[in-house]
Amino acid sequence: MINIDFNYCNLKIADILKYQEKINKIENNEDLPGKEYSGWLDYPGSISKELIVDINKTAKKIVSNNEVLVVCGIGGSYLGAKTVIDALTNNFKSEFKIIYLGTSLSEDEIIEALDYLKDKDFAVNVISKSGTTLETALIFRFLKNLLEKKYGAEARSRIIVTTDEFSGGLRELSIEKEYKTYFIPSDIGGRYSVFTPVGLLPIAASGLDIDEFIKGARLASKDLKEVSIEKNLAYQYALYRYINYINGKSVELFVNYNPKLESLNEWWKQLFGESEGKNGKGLFPASSIFPKDLHSLGQFIQDGSKILFETIISFNKPGNLMVEKIGNNFDGLNYLSSKSVSEINKNIKIGTAKAHFKGSVNNLIIEVDKRDEKGLGYLLYFLMKSCVISSYLLGVNPFDQPGVELYKKEVFEIMNKKQWDNQRYIEHLHKKIFFHWLSISKVLY
Amino acid sequence: MINIDFNYCNLKIADILKYQEKINKIENNEDLPGKEYSGWLDYPGSISKELIVDINKTAKKIVSNNEVLVVCGIGGSYLGAKTVIDALTNNFKSEFKIIYLGTSLSEDEIIEALDYLKDKDFAVNVISKSGTTLETALIFRFLKNLLEKKYGAEARSRIIVTTDEFSGGLRELSIEKEYKTYFIPSDIGGRYSVFTPVGLLPIAASGLDIDEFIKGARLASKDLKEVSIEKNLAYQYALYRYINYINGKSVELFVNYNPKLESLNEWWKQLFGESEGKNGKGLFPASSIFPKDLHSLGQFIQDGSKILFETIISFNKPGNLMVEKIGNNFDGLNYLSSKSVSEINKNIKIGTAKAHFKGSVNNLIIEVDKRDEKGLGYLLYFLMKSCVISSYLLGVNPFDQPGVELYKKEVFEIMNKKQWDNQRYIEHLHKKIFFHWLSISKVLY
Repeated sequence: MINIDFNYCNLKIADILKYQEKINKIENNEDLPGKEYSGWLDYPGSISKELIVDINKTAKKIVSNNEVLVVCGIGGSYLGAKTVIDALTNNFKSEFKIIYLGTSLSEDEIIEALDYLKDKDFAVNVISKSGTTLETALIFRFLKNLLEKKYGAEARSRIIVTTDEFSGGLRELSIEKEYKTYFIPSDIGGRYSVFTPVGLLPIAASGLDIDEFIKGARLASKDLKEVSIEKNLAYQYALYRYINYINGKSVELFVNYNPKLESLNEWWKQLFGESEGKNGKGLFPASSIFPKDLHSLGQFIQDGSKILFETIISFNKPGNLMVEKIGNNFDGLNYLSSKSVSEINKNIKIGTAKAHFKGSVNNLIIEVDKRDEKGLGYLLYFLMKSCVISSYLLGVNPFDQPGVELYKKEVFEIMNKKQWDNQRYIEHLHKKIFFHWLSISKVLY
Repeated sequence: MINIDFNYCNLKIADILKYQEKINKIENNEDLPGKEYSGWLDYPGSISKELIVDINKTAKKIVSNNEVLVVCGIGGSYLGAKTVIDALTNNFKSEFKIIYLGTSLSEDEIIEALDYLKDKDFAVNVISKSGTTLETALIFRFLKNLLEKKYGAEARSRIIVTTDEFSGGLRELSIEKEYKTYFIPSDIGGRYSVFTPVGLLPIAASGLDIDEFIKGARLASKDLKEVSIEKNLAYQYALYRYINYINGKSVELFVNYNPKLESLNEWWKQLFGESEGKNGKGLFPASSIFPKDLHSLGQFIQDGSKILFETIISFNKPGNLMVEKIGNNFDGLNYLSSKSVSEINKNIKIGTAKAHFKGSVNNLIIEVDKRDEKGLGYLLYFLMKSCVISSYLLGVNPFDQPGVELYKKEVFEIMNKKQWDNQRYIEHLHKKIFFHWLSISKVLY
């Protein structure tokens, strides 16, 4: 399913095999920080058929009753779904659209989006573990309001909630309003949640096959149980990163050769940036789409500060679109005639890896068999596994993000902190009573 | 028009003023490398009224005869226009669409785009100085072919060429086919070309006021002639970057608080990356949209490797969209009621700058009066001026990009180089004869 090409970097497989003992130590350590969030590891293998059927049913209902699905979430709540949908569907088609809100507090953006939705039949999948993430919650208020204005009580059937099963404001609301609700397992963090309903519902609504997507992850989960570095590509990628890091590189540039994979770049940046960037450590995760950015960052990579290395994702793709010979050859491109665009793109990939490596920049090419649901499932699982090992090699917890909270604290301090504190306390009491009642009622009925 | 806020970084204005002599030396040096490309400096002040009228006329014609304008170019050929159009127009509106091709050699992307265009009335503005840039030229072949299939001889009126006046395959073709043609001044490089027809035609076609856009640049050009650092904000920004660089930072993160400014981020990355990234020097240019990326790169910035500093662009914007108080306050956000979304966004900006600075990350906030044509014109000119000074502080030529060519060389070597060389030679002869004829015919007629 995946192959790794070390030809364009100064690391050889022998350099990597030396770390077998270090890897064994990590894998055999029962006390690693964050172990309570390792639910993602076996989730693809244990997800129930009933849940898949139910998600597909909900997705079908969304598509048949609406022109637009709004995915309302931030960070790990939307990036995984967007990655798969962008990679595998046609962006120019417009019968049924999926748009993403809940990440921006730009008034213009929100007003334009609400104005666009006003005249469309739309549903909202709001995704938030706590339900109180500032950006998402604020946008959901506007969306819920618009739905209720448009559809009255019927709005209820156009809101699907993905949240924590046992706590949070969104869970309360979903019970009160009887919204269709999916749960985020408590042992899976946001950036590792793409194989849970967080990712699966929007992916299914886009018309893609979530069964195949999960199959890819299952296959990866099997392959990546291998204990030997030689046979386990996740270890190889993690060690490639680690060795570049300890040799003084500070930036990893993650490269794709297809604009449809721009969201994969974004998902990867969140996964690695949030998992590793702590305790003053970590590689800065940057990304590019080539050849586009060869005319932008290309100069820096080839010839600028020697602070980075590259990781290139390459999907095998047979070519169909051929370059034709033209009479006057005004652009001088006739030498490419009878070649397919895919072949040219592939040669640019190899040529660029060669050129950058000659410029002392390490390149690792990760080749994936096919850009389809199964291939993406395999790749995303592979990257999550690599990320966890990579974090443990650095000695950090791959599953927490203490630094994300600090900006909120400063914002609260600016915006009437006292009022906020009082309110949090009242809410806290309110929730305590509510969940107490919930647990009693579960026993009673 | 612009203000710079040093409150959230460890540099004070006094630290910067020390460099006055160094700045004077640069400004008074007649022999700086790349001086032959300084045409951009006075271009906004010298552009003729006739050219503006003509561009507006062409733009009107494009819009009234078409549903879509395809801008076909790569790097500096499209990024400036896209920056202004994305920043100031409504992405959800769809009466007249501008799409960008010529940067990607992904077959799926191209096939989907051609399939979409098949049923639309569309025009193409192909932008390339040489006309032989591989990616752009290849896509233009497909677009031209489709136009000719759809419209026959009438295709001619739907192709607008922006290229060099005196040489190149695209210039030859535009003469032969009598395409409407605009010229890229020979003393202005791609990444400094947004105020020339390269940027102006697509911007005018989007319905924006190019007169105002140029007015902003003229104002900046006047303000930034100030010789004292204290009064010249371009010097201040350039020195902020330079001092961070010599103090060991390797990454600059350029941040906007509005997804409409994602293309501004991309334009900025090309401008600074290509201008500075040479001779083993330069800051790696990275970018973010906040608060979106606070849930992605936020953790790394706050708490990861201390390799970066931030530059935040802030547009002043009075708020209109208010947060309403709701009954059950399920999301705990009632403390924000009677506040506008813009105000919340602004407080997140300040709160985040405070939090990151507490995490030892320097933040510089560049405040721009207004997000409109004039404000953007001012800002882009300001950034170009800053970039040139910044490059000279590093001791590199801001106007060349020798490293960009190297990947092409490798690609040619893979793809039948010999055939390529022969062909280039034949073309070279062909062009020599053609332009010889052209110069004779100019004299004769």
